[in-house]
Amino acid sequence: MSFNILFRSFQTLSYVGTYKKIKNRPLRLYCAAVLGTGIVAYNQYQSKAKMKEIMQLKNYMANPITPVEQLEQNKDDMKTQMELLIMRIQAEFCRALEKEEDKAWEDEKSVEDYDFDNDVYMTWPEAKFTVDRWTRKEGGGGITCVLQDGRVFEKAGVNISVVSGKLPPAAIQQMRSRGKNLQNAELPFFAAGVSAVIHPRNPMVPTIHFNYRYFEVQDKNGVQWWFGGGTDLTPYYLNEDDALHFHLTLKHACDDHDSSYYARFKKWCDDYFYIPHRGERRGVGGIFFDDLDTPNQQAAFAFVTSCAEAVIPSYVPLVKKHKDDAYGYHERQWQLLRRGRYVEFNLIYDRGTKFGLHTPEARYESILMSLPLNAKWEYMHQVQPNSEEEKLLKILKEPKDWLQIEDKKRSNA
Amino acid sequence: MSFNILFRSFQTLSYVGTYKKIKNRPLRLYCAAVLGTGIVAYNQYQSKAKMKEIMQLKNYMANPITPVEQLEQNKDDMKTQMELLIMRIQAEFCRALEKEEDKAWEDEKSVEDYDFDNDVYMTWPEAKFTVDRWTRKEGGGGITCVLQDGRVFEKAGVNISVVSGKLPPAAIQQMRSRGKNLQNAELPFFAAGVSAVIHPRNPMVPTIHFNYRYFEVQDKNGVQWWFGGGTDLTPYYLNEDDALHFHLTLKHACDDHDSSYYARFKKWCDDYFYIPHRGERRGVGGIFFDDLDTPNQQAAFAFVTSCAEAVIPSYVPLVKKHKDDAYGYHERQWQLLRRGRYVEFNLIYDRGTKFGLHTPEARYESILMSLPLNAKWEYMHQVQPNSEEEKLLKILKEPKDWLQIEDKKRSNA
Repeated sequence: MSFNILFRSFQTLSYVGTYKKIKNRPLRLYCAAVLGTGIVAYNQYQSKAKMKEIMQLKNYMANPITPVEQLEQNKDDMKTQMELLIMRIQAEFCRALEKEEDKAWEDEKSVEDYDFDNDVYMTWPEAKFTVDRWTRKEGGGGITCVLQDGRVFEKAGVNISVVSGKLPPAAIQQMRSRGKNLQNAELPFFAAGVSAVIHPRNPMVPTIHFNYRYFEVQDKNGVQWWFGGGTDLTPYYLNEDDALHFHLTLKHACDDHDSSYYARFKKWCDDYFYIPHRGERRGVGGIFFDDLDTPNQQAAFAFVTSCAEAVIPSYVPLVKKHKDDAYGYHERQWQLLRRGRYVEFNLIYDRGTKFGLHTPEARYESILMSLPLNAKWEYMHQVQPNSEEEKLLKILKEPKDWLQIEDKKRSNA
Repeated sequence: MSFNILFRSFQTLSYVGTYKKIKNRPLRLYCAAVLGTGIVAYNQYQSKAKMKEIMQLKNYMANPITPVEQLEQNKDDMKTQMELLIMRIQAEFCRALEKEEDKAWEDEKSVEDYDFDNDVYMTWPEAKFTVDRWTRKEGGGGITCVLQDGRVFEKAGVNISVVSGKLPPAAIQQMRSRGKNLQNAELPFFAAGVSAVIHPRNPMVPTIHFNYRYFEVQDKNGVQWWFGGGTDLTPYYLNEDDALHFHLTLKHACDDHDSSYYARFKKWCDDYFYIPHRGERRGVGGIFFDDLDTPNQQAAFAFVTSCAEAVIPSYVPLVKKHKDDAYGYHERQWQLLRRGRYVEFNLIYDRGTKFGLHTPEARYESILMSLPLNAKWEYMHQVQPNSEEEKLLKILKEPKDWLQIEDKKRSNA
């Protein structure tokens, strides 16, 4: 692990170095990057240690959807492995966010808020995730965890679902249009995935979304399986160091598995999170992939595991860094307008949302938990020239090659 | 006209009478209905008189999209008649709403707000519609009028568009799926329409939407034309008298042309404004129709004119009645949540919005002006049993036969 930390620090240095040559960024970025990567790697190490504890204590948000005996009997089945992974990722992520809420509450509460007679604090307590475990008539179910109206997070939703049944015709159609060779009209399927959208209160903290999923479909030729997913960041105010940190963390997660993944999946992400009518991306991107069934099932699962484990180190440091940043009415209004764009993307273009809402008996509350608590639409909103708002819009209109991957390729060619 | 007023008052009485027999409503409703219908008819009379003035003064919100000489040369062409109708409806409706804003400002301003040196009021003045006249590269254009952040209206958008060109393949596909027999691959078309969405500030005032449009498509067999449109109401708190007044006004507009229209178009409206994933209608309905090409062009135009002219008398009395109603935080929060549902319908299901946003070079600001200034999504929001909020939800889940049309049919059978 310590070698890994060292190696990653050097990797980071090399990226930041290239970046510096081009942009003439100050030396402090070197130091920040080394330190940052160290912290990230340490956090990853910590979270892995904690993960083992969670597994031992079965410290999930709720009982698994599949009966525990069944999971134990099929330990090597990818369905089991994926269900345990998403349960763990959900629990780790929810706890990491709750920790930030707890800290904010600690910072705020005073002796005056304490009711000595009843031994409780009287005011608004720390926000916690509500946990809804739900089942589906056709098979399977999910666990939806939502923290709403907290001090740090305005709305945070972390959902897992483990479902099976027969694929609806519209879904088969969509899969065929993506090039899947699926025989039969009625196809038994299994899907397990985790997805989360976190809308913080402070406009200086970006919104994060991630989703990792595993799919199995059975036709007369046997079982076809694949993984899909991604992690992407939606800032309200652009902080280049944050974007760099975010993309670097994702790149590290990718590079451990295939050196071509980051560049491919970064572009895929920019293409996917596009709002055509506005000519804007939803945010500064990240990674996105689908239909991943190479090089083999265990290797693909290991890649997805790395990606899912990179969520906390890619994001929580940004929350800690900016959650107490100063902001005012103007910044809040801009955040609300950008949240309107988020709603536009999710309701008009997002494949998952559309697919979910058109599935009969879908649990729409779990699908729509991704929507912000508050959003705003102003007719003909104009940003000031050379403002921070315009700086963000420029990046959304023309995605940036944060880690200078394409530039490097060109200079090597 | 005075005979008409009398006749309508009796008509109203007969509906309210039937209604009363079933519901045992108090006598005051009789009086209110007679008075209401009188006011409505008087308003219609007034608005018709004003209309003539507007026509004479060319008192539109902006210059017509089609050059005036061209309009004058083709006075009898339906394209001209429709363009003049929507220009007039837009101007009348915008002025009627501005009048409410002006009044609110009059009620509020005081001598302390007056800057005697510069001869102006210093504080937030009365809200006015901004007027954007825009043109389209391919042909035609529109006039978008939006009043934002007013005292009475939080966001009010009234848009007209007069466009022509070649139909995009997706549009031809959609029309064919509705049963239109369209030959040729590239079809020249003309479309003119007015559409408006008014989101008031006070949660006791409902939101209104209306849209009236005329379409011409040319294929090798000649020109096909049709009208479409509708008016519908979305209350945040259900007031049965309001809903009754609204539906009655629409029924009168329909009855002058075809006694079967109201019942058919009321049902069509309930079916169209349906949010399947929630099992709710968007509001308490109204009328909705499409592909209307009977009994002939002039008669269909006269019907659409009546409907469009019924918008002000159906809605403005409700604004006047409730704009100063008391409300608090709770009611505002509920209004914001319901506006979230409005966004869901418009972005996921509304044909016009979807079609518009998928049209290349569409003016998305004019399409999305229908979205509220503010909206909210709470995970798992629950209404209190027997609350006013629950009363509304019940009606949205099971649309009401406001004027007892079906009951009457049954008792006649």
